[in-house]
Amino acid sequence: MRNMLTAAMLCAVFTSLSEAQVQSLNLMPIPAKVQLGNGWLLINPSFSVAITGHHEARLDRAVEIFLSQLGEQTGMLPIDMKVTNSPSAVLLIQGAGGSKPVQELGEDESYRLDISDSGARLSAPATLGVMRGLETFLQLVETTNEGFAVPVVSIGDSPRFPWRGLLIDVGRHFVPLEVLKRNLGGMAAMKLNVLHLHLSDNQGFRVESKTFPKLHEMGSDGLYYTQDEVRDLIAYARERGIRVVPEFDMPGHSTSWFIGYPELASGPGPYEIERKWGVFDPAMDPTREETYKFLDKFVGEMAKLFPDQFFHVGGDEVNGKQWDSNPKIQDFMHAHGMKNNSDLQAYFNKRVQQIVSQHGKTMLGWDEILRPDRTNSIVIQSWRGPDSLAQAAKQGYRGLLSSGYYLDLMWSAERHYEADPMSGAAAQLNPEEQKRVLGGEACMWGEYVSPENIDSRIWPRTAAIAERLWSPQDVRDVNSMYQRLEKMSQRLEWLGLTHDSSYLPMLRRIAGTNDISALQVLADVLEPVKDYTREETAPAADTSATPLNRVVDAVRPESATARQFADLVNKLAAGGSQPGVEEQIRGWLSRWRDNQVELQSLFEKSFLLKEIAPISQNLSALGAAGLAALHYLDHSEKAPVAWVTEQLAFVEQAKKPQAQLLILVAPSIQKLIEASSGRTASPSLPTK
Amino acid sequence: MRNMLTAAMLCAVFTSLSEAQVQSLNLMPIPAKVQLGNGWLLINPSFSVAITGHHEARLDRAVEIFLSQLGEQTGMLPIDMKVTNSPSAVLLIQGAGGSKPVQELGEDESYRLDISDSGARLSAPATLGVMRGLETFLQLVETTNEGFAVPVVSIGDSPRFPWRGLLIDVGRHFVPLEVLKRNLGGMAAMKLNVLHLHLSDNQGFRVESKTFPKLHEMGSDGLYYTQDEVRDLIAYARERGIRVVPEFDMPGHSTSWFIGYPELASGPGPYEIERKWGVFDPAMDPTREETYKFLDKFVGEMAKLFPDQFFHVGGDEVNGKQWDSNPKIQDFMHAHGMKNNSDLQAYFNKRVQQIVSQHGKTMLGWDEILRPDRTNSIVIQSWRGPDSLAQAAKQGYRGLLSSGYYLDLMWSAERHYEADPMSGAAAQLNPEEQKRVLGGEACMWGEYVSPENIDSRIWPRTAAIAERLWSPQDVRDVNSMYQRLEKMSQRLEWLGLTHDSSYLPMLRRIAGTNDISALQVLADVLEPVKDYTREETAPAADTSATPLNRVVDAVRPESATARQFADLVNKLAAGGSQPGVEEQIRGWLSRWRDNQVELQSLFEKSFLLKEIAPISQNLSALGAAGLAALHYLDHSEKAPVAWVTEQLAFVEQAKKPQAQLLILVAPSIQKLIEASSGRTASPSLPTK
Repeated sequence: MRNMLTAAMLCAVFTSLSEAQVQSLNLMPIPAKVQLGNGWLLINPSFSVAITGHHEARLDRAVEIFLSQLGEQTGMLPIDMKVTNSPSAVLLIQGAGGSKPVQELGEDESYRLDISDSGARLSAPATLGVMRGLETFLQLVETTNEGFAVPVVSIGDSPRFPWRGLLIDVGRHFVPLEVLKRNLGGMAAMKLNVLHLHLSDNQGFRVESKTFPKLHEMGSDGLYYTQDEVRDLIAYARERGIRVVPEFDMPGHSTSWFIGYPELASGPGPYEIERKWGVFDPAMDPTREETYKFLDKFVGEMAKLFPDQFFHVGGDEVNGKQWDSNPKIQDFMHAHGMKNNSDLQAYFNKRVQQIVSQHGKTMLGWDEILRPDRTNSIVIQSWRGPDSLAQAAKQGYRGLLSSGYYLDLMWSAERHYEADPMSGAAAQLNPEEQKRVLGGEACMWGEYVSPENIDSRIWPRTAAIAERLWSPQDVRDVNSMYQRLEKMSQRLEWLGLTHDSSYLPMLRRIAGTNDISALQVLADVLEPVKDYTREETAPAADTSATPLNRVVDAVRPESATARQFADLVNKLAAGGSQPGVEEQIRGWLSRWRDNQVELQSLFEKSFLLKEIAPISQNLSALGAAGLAALHYLDHSEKAPVAWVTEQLAFVEQAKKPQAQLLILVAPSIQKLIEASSGRTASPSLPTK
Repeated sequence: MRNMLTAAMLCAVFTSLSEAQVQSLNLMPIPAKVQLGNGWLLINPSFSVAITGHHEARLDRAVEIFLSQLGEQTGMLPIDMKVTNSPSAVLLIQGAGGSKPVQELGEDESYRLDISDSGARLSAPATLGVMRGLETFLQLVETTNEGFAVPVVSIGDSPRFPWRGLLIDVGRHFVPLEVLKRNLGGMAAMKLNVLHLHLSDNQGFRVESKTFPKLHEMGSDGLYYTQDEVRDLIAYARERGIRVVPEFDMPGHSTSWFIGYPELASGPGPYEIERKWGVFDPAMDPTREETYKFLDKFVGEMAKLFPDQFFHVGGDEVNGKQWDSNPKIQDFMHAHGMKNNSDLQAYFNKRVQQIVSQHGKTMLGWDEILRPDRTNSIVIQSWRGPDSLAQAAKQGYRGLLSSGYYLDLMWSAERHYEADPMSGAAAQLNPEEQKRVLGGEACMWGEYVSPENIDSRIWPRTAAIAERLWSPQDVRDVNSMYQRLEKMSQRLEWLGLTHDSSYLPMLRRIAGTNDISALQVLADVLEPVKDYTREETAPAADTSATPLNRVVDAVRPESATARQFADLVNKLAAGGSQPGVEEQIRGWLSRWRDNQVELQSLFEKSFLLKEIAPISQNLSALGAAGLAALHYLDHSEKAPVAWVTEQLAFVEQAKKPQAQLLILVAPSIQKLIEASSGRTASPSLPTK
């Protein structure tokens, strides 16, 4: 009764939500509906939770995890926090239903969270919704003048897409179990619901197979998950409302299978674990029945180990060379009227699909598996883009977007945030076709990640993708996203992720000293090169044994300093009186100009710093050029044409990658120089 | 043969070791003998190890841990690092013998490490020595101009004391298994060899007992280690050359036993888990035979679970009130001619000692267990000091020093470093008696520690204690200790400890914002109050449920800023031309003076900051006073007497604890004021 009254009172005081209010709430992804009230509900050490609706062990565990996180987040020891049956508990949880035995695609994740200044109520049709609502509650907790508190608010929420995933490639570099677990914690906080494990590739086979033990014994360098560990991981994910989808890439990307079982391959062995990156020739032999017998047993074993409904078979990037050079395979193709390797791969996929289907699973694969003769049950994961997705949807196939969400390409959060599964041709789909667009997956391909830096490649950018996939389509304010992302980043560190805290220790190792302030000034404005430039510009071909301890491995994918500096320069260019803006710009430029002197002594001491010495010189020169430009602007003098030309030429050179790094403040300094020439004073200079 | 030549060449180039060279080596604890040569041995991704001597699984595992740490420390992936049989491996390990089935007190830990520019050889009489030598090797790795490398060096090393421990009190606040494990990693790095677990106290009973399950079920709030977890922990410790000694405190400090088994107590129940801190009345009933039957079964169970030779029974701090007020106990004492409670406790200890002995273990207890009629086999752990230890040694008892090593008293590393088991009366012992002084233990009592801040209470200060217990007695240079301690602190963070990295997140939570630069300026010069002042000055009695999220819980036990500032002020006071010293002092003072303005806005936003508002004001005023004093000194003016008197009175007031915190720069500012008055210009102002 108390709670019904509270809800009625809330409705009276609620006002519609302004953008500023959303930002003040620190929520990510932004819920579908938020109404902010007045006042706060205090969270003190005697905080209590009552489960008043449907009861099940998974819900108890979710509440246990919640209380433990609330304890860590507030520094309160959960010793006095209680789960009670009392209706006077601070947080009442009313779940109408429980959980499916295996979490299903599309299982109801909606919830409603009503907080008054005397109590909170979380209601949901199913346990999954309760889990999502508890994460929202945790995000609302703030340090206030009176104590830890959550604001009076009323939230109705449900996801835009039912499939919101993160792919982690454990094939190229092995990712230890505890690293996966901490990332599951981050995923749950951001309401992602699928961990897609890319479990095998040319460089490694990462799961114990009891049926074919030579797969992991000979194909992994000893770096694989035991079946017990896989079960443990799946249970850990389930406690957080996350499905685990396995991927075994075939018929290509499969050299690691062939070390122990060369008879599966289309060319003569023996094979070795591949150390280099790229697309390689070895591929399974689609023409031998033994291949399918092997796969039938293998898929049968893995289908039991991984309870999820979906089974990913990869299917991408077969270069066909082994097929071309194998006369028996050529004979087979001829005999079956296959015109090309694409036909042969289609035949293989069809056979694999039958196997996957016989073991009760739904097949999932990359764009390449899409052929007109496929049954509609398969799901396409698109690395090609929304248009490819739309084409599949029109043909009746369900699909996931991953194009635009490749974390290894080192794009900005903004650029990922802009990628939308319903954009391009997908925007033109009819409602029935639209339903076939299930969502998307961020992809953490593993060429350049280690346990030390993988978190910094996944987070916080993946939180922006999580918002794109959960929140209403019209949630698109990039500034708001960045403001909340900064707060989320800290929150994710609380959960045990190391994307932020790994940065300085890596720089200290690189410098060989603890005194790295000057190195940090430089590293803060650097980003790794984008797209596939790192592979393309490597002085020597990188391998899976190449140490990942260079500056390019330590610096963040996106420089916050560069973004803030670009904002300042844009403000200056926009004109008007903005006290402090020019001082801040001058402060940064001076620091950069003078930094080279401070850093000089370090270059001689560390082999890992040598390669960035020219970058440091360039930053110093960029700082000087920016200061000179500022001087012209200050004195309303037009900079001499010769000087401008010379400086712009230098900036062009400084923008080029060196040591596989980019100086991200160069474009902003270019704007200052251009402005000093009188060329531009546009108030709408883009930041990108 | 190559290695013999190398050793001979080393002897030729080696020179005796200067203090500066020791420091440049970053070793802690400093080895018994170090001879530094010229040049470096490069560590590259193809680094290899050969085990050429005695072979056993524990040694293989030690090498595996070593390679994994070397990989983490260098950012190289150990995928290409190999253990081979080849004599051309970079590091040759020659262990002459293996390990005892259960690690013993006094087992040989010595080793010899010879590094040339072409290879390294580690030899040791036993696996334990190899483990210690591998830790030394890891400490030697540096980032150089050419690559990661270890210096050419020859080290002969063995410990001064055979028992070098860390006590962790898991009774008052439970310490999760993973926190213990990361601390075991830190212990191994600092060559400590005993983890002493204080497993039961009034506030909790922390081990599963299958014989008496109500102990952990009713006495722990569900916070205990299962027997499987204990075995896992012991195995983890053994892999790192560390013994695990259990302590079950009796007959006092035992309320948690009585919740489930009130019949063990001397007073009527029922009992509840104690929430407050201090010494409480409940004590076991030494007069009932049932007590000893219970303890016999219990000790029997735990003696099997914990394989170590030693079994700690506590025995401290019985206030005797329950004994005084129990007529049956009084009758028993009278019938047996016991004059006082001390006699009764002696009787109890004697009975317990028989039980412990019957289960094949050696009893260990606090000072109080020492009575003239005890057999000489027992070991005394002294919280009273070296004199107490010396007294025990003279009576034939072996002993450990813990007085001087209580980490919860928040002393400086220097103060712990000065405490020596062989000081005081112990220095006068004859050689045979001296052997009875086994070493010492740092003690982390648990009233004010949580998983979040326990590392910062243990480390890095415990590394200084570790050096005291391992290195030769004449290793006493405090400046060198601090310089190396700073580097060790970073090394310990690499090993997974969070003593450094937990600081800023705690401040951010306290402030309720990520922008905490001003708060950090203040927090950096604060320390928690010392000794037992925190309990004594608590506004309301603290309990085990009191949140440990205040500023006093976040700030470090020892302020590095305050120590550095004191050094600067001493340099200034010492006179002579030292360019930059005064500028640095002025810089700090200005920052402190102006900090209050920047911090002001935060005080209104966070309930956790309110209590330090007056401290911030004091720091600001101290900064201003210091600047004024500097002005007088600069102009060779004598500060007016009235001003000096007023300022010194203010400093006295600012030195007083507030919010259970001390401003550690106050004494240095006092010196500046005194210097400005012309009172002092002593070149030997002590920093403490």
